[in-house]
Amino acid sequence: MKESIKIAIDLMGGEKSPDKNLEGANLFLERNKKVTDCFFYFFGDESQVKKKISKYKHLKNNYKIFDSKIVVSDDLSALSTIKKGKNSSMWNSIQSQIDLDADVTLSAGNTGVLLVMSKMILKTMEDVDKPALAGLWPNKKNMNVVLDLGANVECSEKNLIDFSEMGSALFKSLFPDEKAKVSLLNIGVEETKGTELLRGSYSKLKKLDKFGDFEFKGYIEGNKITNGDSNVIVTDGFTGNVALKTAEGTANFLTNTLKESLSENLFSKISIIFSYFSLKKFKNKLDPRKYNGAIFLGLKGPVVKSHGATDGLGFSYSVELCYKIAKGKLIEKIKNNLSHIKNLNEKT
Amino acid sequence: MKESIKIAIDLMGGEKSPDKNLEGANLFLERNKKVTDCFFYFFGDESQVKKKISKYKHLKNNYKIFDSKIVVSDDLSALSTIKKGKNSSMWNSIQSQIDLDADVTLSAGNTGVLLVMSKMILKTMEDVDKPALAGLWPNKKNMNVVLDLGANVECSEKNLIDFSEMGSALFKSLFPDEKAKVSLLNIGVEETKGTELLRGSYSKLKKLDKFGDFEFKGYIEGNKITNGDSNVIVTDGFTGNVALKTAEGTANFLTNTLKESLSENLFSKISIIFSYFSLKKFKNKLDPRKYNGAIFLGLKGPVVKSHGATDGLGFSYSVELCYKIAKGKLIEKIKNNLSHIKNLNEKT
Repeated sequence: MKESIKIAIDLMGGEKSPDKNLEGANLFLERNKKVTDCFFYFFGDESQVKKKISKYKHLKNNYKIFDSKIVVSDDLSALSTIKKGKNSSMWNSIQSQIDLDADVTLSAGNTGVLLVMSKMILKTMEDVDKPALAGLWPNKKNMNVVLDLGANVECSEKNLIDFSEMGSALFKSLFPDEKAKVSLLNIGVEETKGTELLRGSYSKLKKLDKFGDFEFKGYIEGNKITNGDSNVIVTDGFTGNVALKTAEGTANFLTNTLKESLSENLFSKISIIFSYFSLKKFKNKLDPRKYNGAIFLGLKGPVVKSHGATDGLGFSYSVELCYKIAKGKLIEKIKNNLSHIKNLNEKT
Repeated sequence: MKESIKIAIDLMGGEKSPDKNLEGANLFLERNKKVTDCFFYFFGDESQVKKKISKYKHLKNNYKIFDSKIVVSDDLSALSTIKKGKNSSMWNSIQSQIDLDADVTLSAGNTGVLLVMSKMILKTMEDVDKPALAGLWPNKKNMNVVLDLGANVECSEKNLIDFSEMGSALFKSLFPDEKAKVSLLNIGVEETKGTELLRGSYSKLKKLDKFGDFEFKGYIEGNKITNGDSNVIVTDGFTGNVALKTAEGTANFLTNTLKESLSENLFSKISIIFSYFSLKKFKNKLDPRKYNGAIFLGLKGPVVKSHGATDGLGFSYSVELCYKIAKGKLIEKIKNNLSHIKNLNEKT
């Protein structure tokens, strides 16, 4: 019998839980009918979950509910939550990677708490100083992996090198047929541009290019992130977070302005009828729910954070992400990639 | 007689010069018929300019051409350009603030060279360590001033405080009827978020709020830049440059995807006919040429850098920016604002 992919899901984190979580798991299976090797460990209030789960027809004989009534609240600080939060649905969903051989954990709860708990339970990989938070960012050709998105406000050269290897591993586990192409986010593309940190990382990545699985494409500027020439964008957590949120803000500003323009008079309203399907496709292509899910990289097990405010559709894409990175053997790939750094260090 | 606003324009920098520069000056006057107190000092190849200028009907008796045949090339490094570039159109257009009492200088040439030359000729203001590059960024309500956009890769607390005062002065000189509202760009809004540099600047700006002309609104995240609650966004040059370019890239990505969607089939093509004016208005509102022009702040005279690749319309908005900041007495306002910092330092 084929080994199952076991996805541990915290059902209680984020808005509209556990409904959106169950709906998301169900939607993922509905969209991917060929997936028959997926098994869910659900962590939440068992009596509540049992009442709700019957309406999801793809959730049958492919899950086990673990009663965890304690919910990690969004308002508490990381430390006090952890004190209270042992045996919470979040804690148990992570712990199941140790106790129940779960392959990956998914939660829509508080990011900071999830990161601290994950570090405590799963531990950081040897050779990695700081785990990073990676996300997906659409580009013209397909998709970028971007990291760090905010886990590490300040970074060292070693961190950026680790991020490059871990980001490439993530990219390859998601898109096994494509080559990972790493770029460092900077304010110009000439070798002399940017901070000392970036220049040091640049020269190291140039050497690593020969040892690694990825092609190093040099520096990239913010206006080129979406052009698809690179697909692993590496930066410190401060810059990455600002860039991601600025892109989000710009996209919202533009689409709102467009909406206003298209509903301002009768003619433009008529135009919506004619362009309905095209606009729907446009919206669909850029729907942020499709990129929902940030991945903690550098821990001994994979943890995915869904946006707290997303809906069932958004959550289903986080489930898909979990399935893909488990199937794509992310952790193995990361270990293998990190060994390239060791090889380089030994030879130089 | 009313004193004229004297705008010194380097006619030779950037693409399609001197045509776009002359066209821009002419377009500015055409758009602002009430402006009768504007006088241009044009620096460029006199014989070439004389041939071209006759077709611009608003350029009559309101300019003087200064023959400057040397052009600052885009390919040279700042230092070698400066050696060769003394007596270039760029150099002379800056020097005219000293020799000819010009109020402001405008060039579409190389940014780095323009900054170095401006510093050499005009000198940095007392009490300012590092001049900054400020730009305009549309928001829901009106317009933001954002700085630094790349002049200073690494910044100190003092720099960010100076930027806040100088950015507020710029905002007030452009929009005299509105209150300047300063925010620090960060990755969260809680006081504890971000780097030590930001937390230090935060507590100083909170005190300065009482002495200054601006309201301090605390931290702002990238996704809130366009919501209009703040209008002076302060950050270091690295982060500011990444944010600006990421916003540009996102806007291009979205509008290109939209264009493709709207021309993919007959129905969507028909829709364009019905929405023509609305889409035009949408495009018009967000036309980057309207925000063309970055301002060097912290020098003893104001210098504006137009985008090198813009056209006559884009250049005309840089001319307008020059006129407004000269009319709004930017340098006086900056001096006055910087004195608030001194007052605070003396009292605490």
